Amino acid sequence: MNVEINQLKFNEQGLIPAIVQDAASKEVLMMAYMNEVSLKKTLESGETWFWSRSRQELWHKGATSGHIQKVVRIQFDCDADTLLVQVQPEGPACHNGTYSCFTEELQGTTKAAPAEKDRFAILAELEALIARREAERPEGAYTTYLFDKGVDKILKKVGEEAAEVIIGAKNRDAEELRYESADLLFHLMVLLREQKLPLDDVMMELRRRHSAGKGGESHED
Amino acid sequence: MNVEINQLKFNEQGLIPAIVQDAASKEVLMMAYMNEVSLKKTLESGETWFWSRSRQELWHKGATSGHIQKVVRIQFDCDADTLLVQVQPEGPACHNGTYSCFTEELQGTTKAAPAEKDRFAILAELEALIARREAERPEGAYTTYLFDKGVDKILKKVGEEAAEVIIGAKNRDAEELRYESADLLFHLMVLLREQKLPLDDVMMELRRRHSAGKGGESHED
Repeated sequence: MNVEINQLKFNEQGLIPAIVQDAASKEVLMMAYMNEVSLKKTLESGETWFWSRSRQELWHKGATSGHIQKVVRIQFDCDADTLLVQVQPEGPACHNGTYSCFTEELQGTTKAAPAEKDRFAILAELEALIARREAERPEGAYTTYLFDKGVDKILKKVGEEAAEVIIGAKNRDAEELRYESADLLFHLMVLLREQKLPLDDVMMELRRRHSAGKGGESHED
Repeated sequence: MNVEINQLKFNEQGLIPAIVQDAASKEVLMMAYMNEVSLKKTLESGETWFWSRSRQELWHKGATSGHIQKVVRIQFDCDADTLLVQVQPEGPACHNGTYSCFTEELQGTTKAAPAEKDRFAILAELEALIARREAERPEGAYTTYLFDKGVDKILKKVGEEAAEVIIGAKNRDAEELRYESADLLFHLMVLLREQKLPLDDVMMELRRRHSAGKGGESHED
């Protein structure tokens, strides 16, 4: 048994709310309740177990549907009366078949974008597109033009887009900054391809710094 | 009055749990409870209001500390018995002065991050770190230094790192390019946070172009 379970505050029904979050995308998937038994089963199995208030029984998430949730990390808050369970979900969290149970929006609040499972999937797609363009050079495509012109042209664009990011930020113009940041990322990715440097290597450099207790910069953070 | 409030299920104490999430970084900041009055006040004011169970009174988050939370959107789940409130926080969410109330970890729960499954998980982690640094400003951290210095310093770094990417590429030095590309990405992310522009918005801009048959640049591709 885990010592720290004793520090948690279960409510008058012996339950503690558990917020379930996708560890990768950070989307909140669902909220359910755990009692002490289901929490212990969660810790032991590495998969989420809850207490079903409607059925009044232990509930192994995914036991029927196959959509289990592998536990990556469990945190609790300053009052020790709420859990935050980060998971790697295998399939939809909701019994309605949606990725998250939070699909409805309260009238009058800003329109939500549909939750995307992988926030950065577009980077992988663009990387693939850029690689195809470099290999195939289809006529009329902008990326073909960049590769045909060569590294100096690509670098001029990197410098230009960086300057435009700076100007957009100084103008405090969110639309301009969004647009120019996208341009900068795109041209940086074209450059990496031209230089045969995998984007993964850049991600690993950021990971290395982060693991070394540095923020993502070469300085200590 | 908002019609949909009637669809929500408040519990036997007239309360509904409200998960508060940073709309930009997607980090879960806190969980608190709303009654119908505090929910209406939240909708009317665009800032979070809760019901304090310990003090048995309405609680305007940030009224004393100044750390209000501006509401970006409110969603509810499939059972209509939990709210997910996405906010733009002004300062730390926790009365302890931390960015999020979820700082404690249940013993033994951290599993190896599913890094292979998500190549870009480091971007989400750095985004969270940058958000924490902005709210908490720990002394000696490089990111604190950047936020304290302000937008001009951050922009000078963006320009500097872009120049170093260009020089690294001209030298055809893979190590230099990897290093400087990581620096550029990191400072761009600090800038986006300073400008309150979610990284997701930049990803959606790239997605929009890609879906429109454009490569990831504003030109046809």
